[in-house]
Amino acid sequence: MKFYMGPAKWPETIADIEAAGHELVDSLDKAQAYVCTTPNPKKVPQLPPSVEFVQYCYTGVDHLLDAGVIVEGGVPWCNTAGAFAKPVAESALGLLLSQAHHHKAFALAATWDVARELDDSQAWLYGLGSGVTRHVAIFGAGGIGRELIRLLQPFGVHITAVNRSGRAVAGADETVAMEHAGEVWGKADFVVNILPLTPQTQGLIDYATFQAMKPTAVFVNVGRGATVVTDDLVRAVKEGQIAGAALEVVDPEPLPDGHPLYGLPNVTLTPHMGASASVAKYHLGRVFNANAQAFQQGRPMPTHIDVKAGY
Amino acid sequence: MKFYMGPAKWPETIADIEAAGHELVDSLDKAQAYVCTTPNPKKVPQLPPSVEFVQYCYTGVDHLLDAGVIVEGGVPWCNTAGAFAKPVAESALGLLLSQAHHHKAFALAATWDVARELDDSQAWLYGLGSGVTRHVAIFGAGGIGRELIRLLQPFGVHITAVNRSGRAVAGADETVAMEHAGEVWGKADFVVNILPLTPQTQGLIDYATFQAMKPTAVFVNVGRGATVVTDDLVRAVKEGQIAGAALEVVDPEPLPDGHPLYGLPNVTLTPHMGASASVAKYHLGRVFNANAQAFQQGRPMPTHIDVKAGY
Repeated sequence: MKFYMGPAKWPETIADIEAAGHELVDSLDKAQAYVCTTPNPKKVPQLPPSVEFVQYCYTGVDHLLDAGVIVEGGVPWCNTAGAFAKPVAESALGLLLSQAHHHKAFALAATWDVARELDDSQAWLYGLGSGVTRHVAIFGAGGIGRELIRLLQPFGVHITAVNRSGRAVAGADETVAMEHAGEVWGKADFVVNILPLTPQTQGLIDYATFQAMKPTAVFVNVGRGATVVTDDLVRAVKEGQIAGAALEVVDPEPLPDGHPLYGLPNVTLTPHMGASASVAKYHLGRVFNANAQAFQQGRPMPTHIDVKAGY
Repeated sequence: MKFYMGPAKWPETIADIEAAGHELVDSLDKAQAYVCTTPNPKKVPQLPPSVEFVQYCYTGVDHLLDAGVIVEGGVPWCNTAGAFAKPVAESALGLLLSQAHHHKAFALAATWDVARELDDSQAWLYGLGSGVTRHVAIFGAGGIGRELIRLLQPFGVHITAVNRSGRAVAGADETVAMEHAGEVWGKADFVVNILPLTPQTQGLIDYATFQAMKPTAVFVNVGRGATVVTDDLVRAVKEGQIAGAALEVVDPEPLPDGHPLYGLPNVTLTPHMGASASVAKYHLGRVFNANAQAFQQGRPMPTHIDVKAGY
């Protein structure tokens, strides 16, 4: 297919797409497919009639739906669902361990005086003590969740996957449907949130949710920032409703200077860089090629966005 | 056997030892075995003739050898070699990922302004890009190393184990003898040091070693602090000879307030708490029981310290 990429041109991605036999064109008017490399709705161009589908460079599309860029009955859009499973799962495990073992708290304290206190309150992923098994709950267990399960397996943890349908997730010890989530929060030593942002998940994780968790729980968010009520998280951490949090995504982004999350020793942060352009450019080509092939063969495109579901 | 524990009494350990049929006595004079719960040579009591072996609560014994507490031809001492494989390997992986993904740098910067710079320079453990495999070198690949290899396997990395003999380490892609270490430093994206401290390893990792590593390398130390020349590490990190370091052990410990390591954004620190008393108390009983059983049966004790080798 003839494809156009913009506003940014990613050479690594172009090379991967060309290697599959597709042809890069120099203007959108000549393209059958548009590879969109911006998350900013205002930078997405008007699509000429030649464009038959759009390949978006990231996974979360809530803001593009809200802005009316992606609409029911319009040109089909595909996202990169599942493509960033490895980097985001790696980010999630790193954040979990970093927060569990107080890396930020020691960095901010900058003194060995806190060593004993940090030691006594660190959380272990492996089972410390006879017959102890640690529980990890993964909310929104799709491609990233399955990859995270793979990374967690050598630690011997018990894994509860939570998804919309409750259909069993490979590698999880149990799978629970989202409607029964209330039974899961309080049982986990580590709660990992990978939920997409939809009207149903917006602000889902609030003060009451944190109250329901163990006071020793570590909460990790690598999904979408706005599934969590940030002020409630700050309050819950300050009050000790949970032991700590590790956030790759926050609401709002960018997190403004001086925001209380920066200063909390038991909230570890990364600036939404688990699946940024520097990562996406190495994965996007493969996703486009799979969608283009399906399109050409008249099959459903693997990552076609369901406008009604919101992802 | 009749055992005495001191100076600290660890109830979890006592329970595990008693469960194996041994009897706790209330003074060292009545004991056949002494379970030593201090790393401080000055707090180790004189041993009465009744004591037939000593079970030390940690692994590194270099300081007890230096202080003449453990001597050739004296009462046999056992350490906990291998017992802390799980917690120390967990610490190592957490430190590696935390440093690779700039958790400390973002914590100290406390502003989204650095997001792009951090993103561009983060290191990935999984293979980002077509056909890319990341290389991890593990120096001192004993029990902890084997456990770390287990945790690393799902990431699909290439693992080079380095040990004294060069005898193949299970799970490693290759094993290299220590005498050929010079060929390994420069090939690894991640260098993990778990070497014991002996006259041969003291100050082994110096400025020249860091120069030999890739400028993008992340160095992790979970072995003994004094195998690294700390001033050389500080210089190498400041000059960009390596990308960063993550240290569970340092020389000296405690690291004094105001030490330059605290302020370096690309040096992640934990205060030697990967196998502290809070962890050891859950593992020590099993090690003692194995040694006691071997002793009673006249077999070599599994973790008997070789005074000449130094560990």
